[in-house]
Amino acid sequence: MNEPTRIVIIGGSAAGPKAASKARRLNEFAEITIIQKDADLSMASCGYPYYVGGFFDNRNQLLSTPTGVVRDQKFYLNAKGIKALVNTEALKINTSARVVETVNLITGEKAKIPYDKLILATGATPNIPPLEGVDLEGITTLQSMKDADYLRKVRDDKKIKKAVVIGGGLIGIETAEALRLADIEITIVELLPQLLTFLDFNMAKLAENYVKSKTNVITKNGVAKFIGENGKLVGVKLQNGTEVPCELAVIAIGVRPDVKLAKAAGIKIGEHGGIEINEFMQTSNPDIYAVGDCVEITNLVTGRKVLAPYGDLANLEGRVAGENAVLGNSVTFKGTIQTGICKVFDYNVGATGLSEDTANKLGIKVDTIINASPDKPGFMIGKLLISKLIVNAETCQILGAQCIGPGDVCKQISIWAMAIMAKMCIEDMVNADFPYAPPFSLAIDHSIATAHIMQNKRKGRFVGITAQNLKKKMDDGDDIFLLDTRGYDEFEVMRLGKGETLIPLGQLRTRMNELPEDKSKEIITYCKISLRGYEAAVLLKAHGYTNVKVLEGGLMAWHYKREK
Amino acid sequence: MNEPTRIVIIGGSAAGPKAASKARRLNEFAEITIIQKDADLSMASCGYPYYVGGFFDNRNQLLSTPTGVVRDQKFYLNAKGIKALVNTEALKINTSARVVETVNLITGEKAKIPYDKLILATGATPNIPPLEGVDLEGITTLQSMKDADYLRKVRDDKKIKKAVVIGGGLIGIETAEALRLADIEITIVELLPQLLTFLDFNMAKLAENYVKSKTNVITKNGVAKFIGENGKLVGVKLQNGTEVPCELAVIAIGVRPDVKLAKAAGIKIGEHGGIEINEFMQTSNPDIYAVGDCVEITNLVTGRKVLAPYGDLANLEGRVAGENAVLGNSVTFKGTIQTGICKVFDYNVGATGLSEDTANKLGIKVDTIINASPDKPGFMIGKLLISKLIVNAETCQILGAQCIGPGDVCKQISIWAMAIMAKMCIEDMVNADFPYAPPFSLAIDHSIATAHIMQNKRKGRFVGITAQNLKKKMDDGDDIFLLDTRGYDEFEVMRLGKGETLIPLGQLRTRMNELPEDKSKEIITYCKISLRGYEAAVLLKAHGYTNVKVLEGGLMAWHYKREK
Repeated sequence: MNEPTRIVIIGGSAAGPKAASKARRLNEFAEITIIQKDADLSMASCGYPYYVGGFFDNRNQLLSTPTGVVRDQKFYLNAKGIKALVNTEALKINTSARVVETVNLITGEKAKIPYDKLILATGATPNIPPLEGVDLEGITTLQSMKDADYLRKVRDDKKIKKAVVIGGGLIGIETAEALRLADIEITIVELLPQLLTFLDFNMAKLAENYVKSKTNVITKNGVAKFIGENGKLVGVKLQNGTEVPCELAVIAIGVRPDVKLAKAAGIKIGEHGGIEINEFMQTSNPDIYAVGDCVEITNLVTGRKVLAPYGDLANLEGRVAGENAVLGNSVTFKGTIQTGICKVFDYNVGATGLSEDTANKLGIKVDTIINASPDKPGFMIGKLLISKLIVNAETCQILGAQCIGPGDVCKQISIWAMAIMAKMCIEDMVNADFPYAPPFSLAIDHSIATAHIMQNKRKGRFVGITAQNLKKKMDDGDDIFLLDTRGYDEFEVMRLGKGETLIPLGQLRTRMNELPEDKSKEIITYCKISLRGYEAAVLLKAHGYTNVKVLEGGLMAWHYKREK
Repeated sequence: MNEPTRIVIIGGSAAGPKAASKARRLNEFAEITIIQKDADLSMASCGYPYYVGGFFDNRNQLLSTPTGVVRDQKFYLNAKGIKALVNTEALKINTSARVVETVNLITGEKAKIPYDKLILATGATPNIPPLEGVDLEGITTLQSMKDADYLRKVRDDKKIKKAVVIGGGLIGIETAEALRLADIEITIVELLPQLLTFLDFNMAKLAENYVKSKTNVITKNGVAKFIGENGKLVGVKLQNGTEVPCELAVIAIGVRPDVKLAKAAGIKIGEHGGIEINEFMQTSNPDIYAVGDCVEITNLVTGRKVLAPYGDLANLEGRVAGENAVLGNSVTFKGTIQTGICKVFDYNVGATGLSEDTANKLGIKVDTIINASPDKPGFMIGKLLISKLIVNAETCQILGAQCIGPGDVCKQISIWAMAIMAKMCIEDMVNADFPYAPPFSLAIDHSIATAHIMQNKRKGRFVGITAQNLKKKMDDGDDIFLLDTRGYDEFEVMRLGKGETLIPLGQLRTRMNELPEDKSKEIITYCKISLRGYEAAVLLKAHGYTNVKVLEGGLMAWHYKREK
């Protein structure tokens, strides 16, 4: 090269700076420029809810290196030799001249920045419903540093008493927690029948039961309009006519890729509205790469394109694009299995791979099971995990997993993410060798126990029924015999109260006469987590009962009302 | 079958009861008998240190189901239809008559118990050094419920002030913590140059530095004799002549398989002294299976047989043997990758797969790197993890990983265990899709960052030097230029003090003139964790320096003394 390579990056949040830094490490003499519309750079945007929620008080912690240096223009220039233009909007990409036209939003000064390789990291824009009153004071999103500053001020001012969070997805739930920690009464409003749509209905309802202990939750209901007085929000009116008084509303109904610049530059946009890229993160214009929330990428389980606006993927994509922009296409980013997690108070919710619902929609036949059990022994104060595992019904390949509860969900989801990425089958998991000691795990880790249940189901030894299907049978008035196999003391504390018969497992062999005479009658066995329920089912089958099912996950996975 | 199958299991701790329970679920009408020498059944033996350490106070918690039912003879009979003979020793296996000869240790009554299939779960016996004074009062192991009861009494009595733990392996370290929590001054004595020999030397020394903040540690020194007064222990004399006063000594120098019965029955014993089994957990006698600490199993990375006396494997093996004993050989247990973990106060130590040391001994050429970084963002109070990754130098297949620190070691080791079991290479890990949210992980998870460093090393971009090799160069008086790239404030708080030059990374481009004129001079760059150190090295190489190395893991992985 005679001239130094000129690499321009549009977008300074996550993927952009990562691409810039990687490019720098591979070419000390390239001219690298970041064009950033906001005043801040390298914002840890996934951390906004925790700043709002008071987990920490110094805003700069969202913008700092691990040693506490703020990643501002000076930092990028000195530590990395990267020119970061903040408060600067990219107006147009002139692809034939290979120039980005910009304007400084403070001074109004326009400029043309030439590039050899351009990396688009333009992110995503929050969806805002076009409703009456949406411009009232007191309505915001939590998508920018400005939003975070606004909501943190709400916390610090301690004036607002009631807030509505519109949308029960990841950001909605995290925002609800943050504002609840500011002592604000929260109502989450979700248009769909469930929160957290990356979970299947049964898992989402279990999580919702927990969320309801902290906030109000309204599902199957959207916002019809925002109600204002003197320009300020005083409530929201729902589609069913209900009015919910509130002084604050946070809109969290998802984001859409910001592809304006790309589209205007003739770059190909994909079917989901994200910039189309190949596995080198290269767009339809070979000089232009795109990374982060503005692109659509491949779901590695289905092979289909998806939008996956996650901070971790943005960083990985940035690293790949940064290298390819400097060295030519040499490294690849194959895609995502759509792994996600969120914390809501003392409860963790995670998923990876396909949900049963998505599999059904795609016509993939799957087997599923639910496993409820603690993450550690009782003597180490183990906490409950409820997992759902989804495998291909033909091949037994692991396709998806969901895990919720106060226990160590992150480890479980990490394990299943590895299993999915490695295209493992259940047989590969039943004798897995994980780190075991009582402070960390049960002797048979929850993930392995989950695989065991699936293996038992596949061998026809475990015939399960989900809470949802059992509820349907009850509602339909089906003639079923419910057998609770727990102890009397447990029954006093918690029970379905649906006409069940209580026979503790330890008495079952001697009390068979209390079971239905008709051995073909449908019997549903269960206990707290359905381990004893399973042993009871095996026992009944050995004694000739032909239609015995185990309530999957036991009472812990029953997401409907109980008597106690 | 005309007669019910008779299945006899010798051993009632972990693997035995698991095999019995599995057998029962597969055949309700089999006669299943457990022969157990101890009074207790199904002891959670890995939990002993936590009972001794006061994590919980009810001894029965070690013997109970998750709902608090003690797994005693009555429980096994009623809940599982299994006859458990406690206080009963198996004296002899008559393989031609297919009978086990037993004696009741309380009544002296002898019996002959016929079997169709026999499962040996005879466990392991602690190694006791044949030293003078080894029978003194105050010397114990922590391998049985009786030992746990004894040491718990030591805690409760509050009389003993000083104890020596002999052996710095997993059990030794856990015991040291337990007794330290009883306010006893502890000295760990280890014959080898390091604690925790499943770790490589450099990782073990980092862990040892932490352990030393809680207990005394003496390495490269064994016990020569126990010193007594009036039959009671008053101290140990070490091989170098030092005397360590103590009223209690716990011997934790490993266990050996208990194969007496098997050997006498003509069953084949393997090269490491464990019962030889095939992948069905079947011994050389087709009617006899063996499981748990008494067997040797295949290391799946090396293909060699190993002793792996871990509670998690015992349970998995028991499940396999239980099924095969009932159904004929149908399921397999392929082996172990020797995954382990232990907690010592607020520090976690884990490993999986091959260590560098073991690889070297086996002649497998490996590449290794060290990564030190937090498990979570600073604003979520991330805790440090130090990982060592070991890959095959030719194929880049992941062979082993070690991780230590106050952070979430268990997740890291679980991820690497999956990678090893799935025979993944580094390229399969660099864009892994794990659950990310700030309460759980960095945007680029520590495991992925570890893979990135290895990838950079493999591509020749990262040239590392371990603390151990740097120390050797220093000791040899090599002419090296040490470049600390941190800030002045950081340098004031902590530094090597070995003649290093401090140039913060942000000033390096403008202060090149302070570097050696000779561009071939060996330069070692570092910072706290060697991220800035790496960027500095890249920068120097771009400016013509030809012999630049990065101190792997930075100051966090420097296990020798620092000036500050």
